[in-house]
Amino acid sequence: MSHTKRTLTLEDVADLARGCAFLGSGGGGDPHTAFMEIEAALGEGGAIELIELESLPDDAFVAPCGWIGAPTISAEKLPSGREALQGLRKLEEITNRRVDAVFPVEIGGSNGLAALLLALRSGLPVVDCDGMGRAFPESQMVIFNIRGQQASPAILTDDKGNCVVIETVDNVSEERLARAAAVTLGGSCHLIEYCASAREMKANALRGTISDALRIGRGIRAARENGRDPFHGLFEALRASPHFDQAGVLFDGKIVDLQRETRNGFSVGRAVIDAFGGGQRLEVEFKNENLIARLDGQVRALVPDIISILDRETAETIVTECLKYGQRVKVVGASAPRALRSAESLAVLGPDAFKLPGPYRSIAELNGWK
Amino acid sequence: MSHTKRTLTLEDVADLARGCAFLGSGGGGDPHTAFMEIEAALGEGGAIELIELESLPDDAFVAPCGWIGAPTISAEKLPSGREALQGLRKLEEITNRRVDAVFPVEIGGSNGLAALLLALRSGLPVVDCDGMGRAFPESQMVIFNIRGQQASPAILTDDKGNCVVIETVDNVSEERLARAAAVTLGGSCHLIEYCASAREMKANALRGTISDALRIGRGIRAARENGRDPFHGLFEALRASPHFDQAGVLFDGKIVDLQRETRNGFSVGRAVIDAFGGGQRLEVEFKNENLIARLDGQVRALVPDIISILDRETAETIVTECLKYGQRVKVVGASAPRALRSAESLAVLGPDAFKLPGPYRSIAELNGWK
Repeated sequence: MSHTKRTLTLEDVADLARGCAFLGSGGGGDPHTAFMEIEAALGEGGAIELIELESLPDDAFVAPCGWIGAPTISAEKLPSGREALQGLRKLEEITNRRVDAVFPVEIGGSNGLAALLLALRSGLPVVDCDGMGRAFPESQMVIFNIRGQQASPAILTDDKGNCVVIETVDNVSEERLARAAAVTLGGSCHLIEYCASAREMKANALRGTISDALRIGRGIRAARENGRDPFHGLFEALRASPHFDQAGVLFDGKIVDLQRETRNGFSVGRAVIDAFGGGQRLEVEFKNENLIARLDGQVRALVPDIISILDRETAETIVTECLKYGQRVKVVGASAPRALRSAESLAVLGPDAFKLPGPYRSIAELNGWK
Repeated sequence: MSHTKRTLTLEDVADLARGCAFLGSGGGGDPHTAFMEIEAALGEGGAIELIELESLPDDAFVAPCGWIGAPTISAEKLPSGREALQGLRKLEEITNRRVDAVFPVEIGGSNGLAALLLALRSGLPVVDCDGMGRAFPESQMVIFNIRGQQASPAILTDDKGNCVVIETVDNVSEERLARAAAVTLGGSCHLIEYCASAREMKANALRGTISDALRIGRGIRAARENGRDPFHGLFEALRASPHFDQAGVLFDGKIVDLQRETRNGFSVGRAVIDAFGGGQRLEVEFKNENLIARLDGQVRALVPDIISILDRETAETIVTECLKYGQRVKVVGASAPRALRSAESLAVLGPDAFKLPGPYRSIAELNGWK
């Protein structure tokens, strides 16, 4: 059996950033800073190798990584660039094992790129998979938790060189401790968690989601370069994915109201979007991520399905902390990976978990898509 | 050179608990629960050996320990009894060193007894010293921090089996992270911190403070048993200490008002005490510990000097969380150890550190004691 292995170019990373922003459902942080960090690091040499999960032996040790905190904070509190490698070395020290590969715990937003920088710094490959297929505000909202993996030991590091090792008897306590530590350390920290053997990851991870994000970003760019509607490029890429194939435009309009505050380490609020010329109104509520979209009061998309707000000309995703009054946007919905829509998953990351009106109904059903 | 080494009896532990409550300056938690834990553990066998710091070789590895959180919470949230030993074993694991002895990070309140239980569980001796000579609300308010020791690695454990290892570049971040983790885990956790060689502890620790607390508790009890005023026994014991020799009654009266709330993991408030028959009034402000006493608005005692509120008949200390309206009390002041009254120490744990009106003036000066 041969396995695909490719080296990512800087153009790939830019495409990936665009795709990750879309899959973030508004959250996971703007990938722009992470992209610039990788651009600078690539300039110093080194390469980012993307490998398939299957290419790893079952006993390989793999580490999901990302950032925890409010994207509104991470947009202003720049990283030192040393957080991830410090965390990786600490993980190796306390487990007395060498890590063989890394990957993003969530593909959405800036976190979809975090593993690339760690790969460059450590010389390790990046595995083409993630744990969320999008972004979620809390770290137990990950397929690894739903499928019984242990979050511990989790390693949290900050830009000053502080490090917290969290070993809990349950994964919700791990999220709460990591969140409290991140808030204490300024609101944005690197977190390595749910480390496991490749055998476990083969059973549990969401495969190919880095490739999906790459395809989405490339599709948007290629359409623009070819003078086509970038939304056509986006939807072609989404339809080609096994995860996000049900997708469409939920609304087209202008942001007329925006409420956003940082509460308990999260960016919480809502955006109100009116159709051009008046008439219909879409309201999107978010907690780091966009969670629910209502068209004139009727629910049209519900977490875990993806709700992203895009610039209506360029199809660039506008993440939660970059929303502004007056932006002209299209709101796009896409199906979440099937693994997130099981009853077990919905209990952890569906509408109930956010105290939103449920039960969950798929975006295809809510919009009458085939 | 011969060194004193003694095995503590259950009566010693009861006396120690009484003395620790006094030295807590209202804080450190009511030692009653800790006493009962030790009573039960002693009944299962084992012995508590109290040794002098000098008896340890310079390269011995010693671990200060105690509890972090609000005493109001620890009075209701009982420990599992496994927290301290779990923390000790984790410390040994991450440092790859065996711990040779333990001692209380603060002698005041329940924390003065915490090391005894760990000694029983681990078979290690307890060193006759501590890091505060009383109790303080924040963990960086310790002579080890003032004298440049590192708090890290700090090991925080809870009753469920959760564990957090904190490694910070500064000791205030360690306090903040430990506090946030303790709040997240329910408000009361075991904490091992400022671990060091016996050489460092010989240079920095406050010596003989367990013996002081024992003498205080025994002096009160012996006076009662002999039909004497227990406050005479208390003051005889205080005068015999090199640390707490300036002491006296600040006030005698009845608690007529009490404000107490749990804020950010601390018990914060004030007690108002009126003289019998009216006239004078003493106000005591606390943040876990009693920090300032004002007689009709005039400051009569200031942190770090000890301010304890005692039952006026039995001379049993009433810790902050046990204060009640109507209690008839004597408020006793005593000098803090000299090491806490240096300019460097006062910057960390004096009135300024609590945003109280300063500068610090000694209790002897404020009351015209010789």
